[in-house]
Amino acid sequence: MQIIDGKKIAEEIKGEIREAVDKMCARNLKPPHLAAVLVGHDGGSETYVAQKVKSCEQVGFRSSLIRYEEDVTEAALLRCIARLNIDTDIDGFIVQLPLPGHINERAIIEAIAPAKDVDGFHPENAGRMAIGLPCHVSATPAGIMELFRRCRIDTQGKHCVVLGRSNIVGKPISILMSQKSQPGDATVTLCHSRTRNLADITRQADIIIAAMGQPDFLTADMVKDGVVVIDVGTTRIPSTDTRSGWKLKGDVKFDEVAPKCSYITPVPGGVGPMTIVSLLRNTLQAAEQRNRP
Amino acid sequence: MQIIDGKKIAEEIKGEIREAVDKMCARNLKPPHLAAVLVGHDGGSETYVAQKVKSCEQVGFRSSLIRYEEDVTEAALLRCIARLNIDTDIDGFIVQLPLPGHINERAIIEAIAPAKDVDGFHPENAGRMAIGLPCHVSATPAGIMELFRRCRIDTQGKHCVVLGRSNIVGKPISILMSQKSQPGDATVTLCHSRTRNLADITRQADIIIAAMGQPDFLTADMVKDGVVVIDVGTTRIPSTDTRSGWKLKGDVKFDEVAPKCSYITPVPGGVGPMTIVSLLRNTLQAAEQRNRP
Repeated sequence: MQIIDGKKIAEEIKGEIREAVDKMCARNLKPPHLAAVLVGHDGGSETYVAQKVKSCEQVGFRSSLIRYEEDVTEAALLRCIARLNIDTDIDGFIVQLPLPGHINERAIIEAIAPAKDVDGFHPENAGRMAIGLPCHVSATPAGIMELFRRCRIDTQGKHCVVLGRSNIVGKPISILMSQKSQPGDATVTLCHSRTRNLADITRQADIIIAAMGQPDFLTADMVKDGVVVIDVGTTRIPSTDTRSGWKLKGDVKFDEVAPKCSYITPVPGGVGPMTIVSLLRNTLQAAEQRNRP
Repeated sequence: MQIIDGKKIAEEIKGEIREAVDKMCARNLKPPHLAAVLVGHDGGSETYVAQKVKSCEQVGFRSSLIRYEEDVTEAALLRCIARLNIDTDIDGFIVQLPLPGHINERAIIEAIAPAKDVDGFHPENAGRMAIGLPCHVSATPAGIMELFRRCRIDTQGKHCVVLGRSNIVGKPISILMSQKSQPGDATVTLCHSRTRNLADITRQADIIIAAMGQPDFLTADMVKDGVVVIDVGTTRIPSTDTRSGWKLKGDVKFDEVAPKCSYITPVPGGVGPMTIVSLLRNTLQAAEQRNRP
């Protein structure tokens, strides 16, 4: 059994991105510039955005943080996006989700220019991904694919069971895993809350990608020996072990499932670090596009 | 066992579309207008476009056929699309595929304004469909969903196995069938050329949607009793039975599979007629959008 060290792999990739940025600068080109729009003061969102800004610094990107109070209007946010869309100094930007209830998240996402949508949430990027065209693939699915690539996990012809059909993880990863590519080319079953006899299905899986957001959902009796398990769950649960008073919990009952696995990702330190790296890669890609003659 | 009469269902829907058009005309609104662009003189393409034009007439649409010779340049075709995009008299249009080898099909499809892309092939429509947003769903998957709806086939929680991962059928129908909707909400397995032990998977299926383009691929030993089989195959094979010298053959060995089914679609007369009807529905939808104040 091998625990996939997402943190270490993410650091390796950051090193490669740093090299690419250095080469850009050596050619007198501006380094990539990522902007993040943050509304309100939600603890989780603050943490995520701070991590993204810090990661930008580590790889030599420029970064900008644009803050709005909780009561910002949708119109003001849309004007901000319109400015970022035409700002030639910004290569890519994200609007940290979730947004306050009075703002239509869909309208915000669709207002972002697809070329600058480094989160890959715009329908045009989702569609290009589904068709297999070049695009910004959304960060978590792209990070999972990169884990398979770096760990040289063979996926071709394998039965991959995806748990959860969210637009940002379950659906896109099921599409990527079934596409004619390496990694990919797997037979994919997408399961969700309406799935019957779930354990019968997961027990047939060579690869399980758990993205339901239900702590400790996948138990040892639900998997076969030698399975590859990717845990995308990141539920915050109260904890006396940490200074913050909470810790992240995955969808997999790690202690009992891990011994049966050939590979497994831990939470934290598995998929999470890869997500931010994917965002950096998308931003680098956008900057390279800008620099193309 | 019930044979799903796609032709009859398609006629019913055409009647409903006809009524909607009559109501439009009664309100002094222009009826929907569909344009088709046809390049060259391929027999199959000629037949399909002729069927589409005829169907338009049946439901009271206006239709236009724009013809180009085989040697038309990509630039000329792109100019034609640009004109159709801004022509306020045209509600929707299609470019009949396949196109000659010297023309980049992708560039042509992406040039079509998503709102007029009634084939649903533009990445923005593919992405909106994947996310579950209002859009033009491509015609064949939309037609299959409509068959489930009209036949009141329960799909929720059922195991649906899709054979084939094409961009125009396999991939989109697998997404639609897994979405939280009625029909839909099924557990979906997407199989393809790299799938191992395929018969073990199909034998577990409550619903099989065969879209590989391999005549007689699905045999009786591959299905369980009571299965619902949707046959999307339409391979032309030589035949002495028909005046044309060919006939359409599905992916399902109908004679031996049908007795085991609760429902099955024949070829021809199953999914095929529904595809054209979906195109008409998308065009009607585009026209209604145009008429909205």
